[in-house]
Amino acid sequence: MNNYLSPWLKDIEEQPIEMSSRIRLARNIKGLPFPHQLNDPDAVESLSGEIEEVLTGHHNIPVNEMNFEDKALLVEKHLISPLFTKNGYSSFINKDESESVMVNEEDHLRIQVMGAGVPMHDLYEKAVRIDDVLEEKLNYAFDERYGFLTACPTNVGTGMRASVMLHLPALSLNNKISRFQNNLNRFGFALRGIYGEGSVPLGHIYQLSNQLTLGQTEEEIIDHLDELKNRIIEEEQEVRKDLITHYPVKTKDTVSRSYGILKYAYTLTSKEAAMHLSNVKLGMDMGILKIDFRFQEWVQLIQPAFVKKRLNELNKEISSLEKAVDEERAALLRERLGGM
Amino acid sequence: MNNYLSPWLKDIEEQPIEMSSRIRLARNIKGLPFPHQLNDPDAVESLSGEIEEVLTGHHNIPVNEMNFEDKALLVEKHLISPLFTKNGYSSFINKDESESVMVNEEDHLRIQVMGAGVPMHDLYEKAVRIDDVLEEKLNYAFDERYGFLTACPTNVGTGMRASVMLHLPALSLNNKISRFQNNLNRFGFALRGIYGEGSVPLGHIYQLSNQLTLGQTEEEIIDHLDELKNRIIEEEQEVRKDLITHYPVKTKDTVSRSYGILKYAYTLTSKEAAMHLSNVKLGMDMGILKIDFRFQEWVQLIQPAFVKKRLNELNKEISSLEKAVDEERAALLRERLGGM
Repeated sequence: MNNYLSPWLKDIEEQPIEMSSRIRLARNIKGLPFPHQLNDPDAVESLSGEIEEVLTGHHNIPVNEMNFEDKALLVEKHLISPLFTKNGYSSFINKDESESVMVNEEDHLRIQVMGAGVPMHDLYEKAVRIDDVLEEKLNYAFDERYGFLTACPTNVGTGMRASVMLHLPALSLNNKISRFQNNLNRFGFALRGIYGEGSVPLGHIYQLSNQLTLGQTEEEIIDHLDELKNRIIEEEQEVRKDLITHYPVKTKDTVSRSYGILKYAYTLTSKEAAMHLSNVKLGMDMGILKIDFRFQEWVQLIQPAFVKKRLNELNKEISSLEKAVDEERAALLRERLGGM
Repeated sequence: MNNYLSPWLKDIEEQPIEMSSRIRLARNIKGLPFPHQLNDPDAVESLSGEIEEVLTGHHNIPVNEMNFEDKALLVEKHLISPLFTKNGYSSFINKDESESVMVNEEDHLRIQVMGAGVPMHDLYEKAVRIDDVLEEKLNYAFDERYGFLTACPTNVGTGMRASVMLHLPALSLNNKISRFQNNLNRFGFALRGIYGEGSVPLGHIYQLSNQLTLGQTEEEIIDHLDELKNRIIEEEQEVRKDLITHYPVKTKDTVSRSYGILKYAYTLTSKEAAMHLSNVKLGMDMGILKIDFRFQEWVQLIQPAFVKKRLNELNKEISSLEKAVDEERAALLRERLGGM
């Protein structure tokens, strides 16, 4: 099962609040219509071929030939975007799966580098190295005044989106998130849930990212993002202290029950499982639960495509897929936590 | 903590559905007004003295001199009735606490014998032996035509109430209980929850007892009770089979989650604790949970007076008694189940 996890994710040292970071660069080829206007399979194939020639450390994954399930797994691993599952062509992925170059996403190229416990500037440097290799071969659409040209105007300029995932259960439960969200928007940043569609995102996991790509250098954007990230982390820590000071029993009860339910349940939706994993991670970070578990890994392992892979391997008889996935998710968690 | 449990309860072999049984005989002294009309402390004291002379195997417990908490503990152990905590005088209790003779309850004497895994007829024989000893010394109010005379007309005749506690989670959850209750009433029997006041009694524990004391011998009443008990047990077993056949995952999930919550919660009301204990007992009886626990003991241990005794022993600092009891109840269960 662990084999489906990205190697880079297995190597990181997990932090209390800050999860993984990502740099994404949008690039396009001069003279070639943007993907949504491009009806020329040969051109895309040719572009992919040129990339293959220069990106020798990356494997060419023909996503367009994959079945739905395998694509979904790549989405859950953040190696491709949901949009890419529909019209994407290929993705060039490196060995530890921390880097990918998507061909024919919203833009011709989307260069993406992920990491955790690594300064955002370093991730950016890694992305730039890929960008430099590609630029030697390809003729980018670039305007002296505006910078990189992109399919959507919101990416014009640097074409960069820097984002960091944050685990914010205390702020989230405290309804302080929306205040943050409003303030961040004024600075050109966004804080959004990355899983789930309700008011509270699955696992209380939020993504902080820049929304502006014009008028600032990449370095300035990253500095600003780091600064805002640190402020949010400090605030989350404050609220956690308040929780344990004012509601010690309630807090211990909540995180410990979540542990018990993950360990013993026989059916769990991804929504419920993520909530309990979030509580257990909170309990671990606050020193309430003396256990060792890797939140980021587990949050991936309970995602539907991961669980379906496990179901396939086990070759079980299945009547209802949805039910089977919820049951297999619970089985996975029981197994990992030593439940019955 | 176990020291507060009645020794007889610790020795029984617990069954899947049938819990403990009880025989109670109501007796009164000829010429003495019934307790609710008796304003003569000397007469009650004298009666208690006469009993003490003949019941040499029983300890005279001066319940009227006890504090509220100790009385509550005796009620939870079923050694005295709630009514008895108000106006009762003394109770004669044998060594294993399976027998008690209450002086000045609703009637002058209430002889009570409890047991589990013992035929009801044998319990009745034990009660009769106490009754015989007392009758040699005391002059009972007895009418040739009606039988024993009692303060409340519903006890006139045999003065006997035979009852058995049954754990009926499946029937209870299936809403079949009310149908049973109506049918039983027509036969002069009642099936009632013994803990809690809602529509579903705490721990799904019901008491089946005779309501009629006239026109039938004690043996006939007991035979009839046994027959009805067996029918209810069979029905409960049927519904349990249906549960595991039609809802195997839901059933396993429910009982296993309850186990996890009991093992890891930091605060539990008696209502919630009883519900989870009931689910765990059901899971154990159905072979879902491979654990060993004594339902009847644990249901007593989580009762408020039991938990308060434990709090007293621990000598903890307490701000809110209710909260402290709920927390101590959870601590007790975590401790017993090896939770964190």
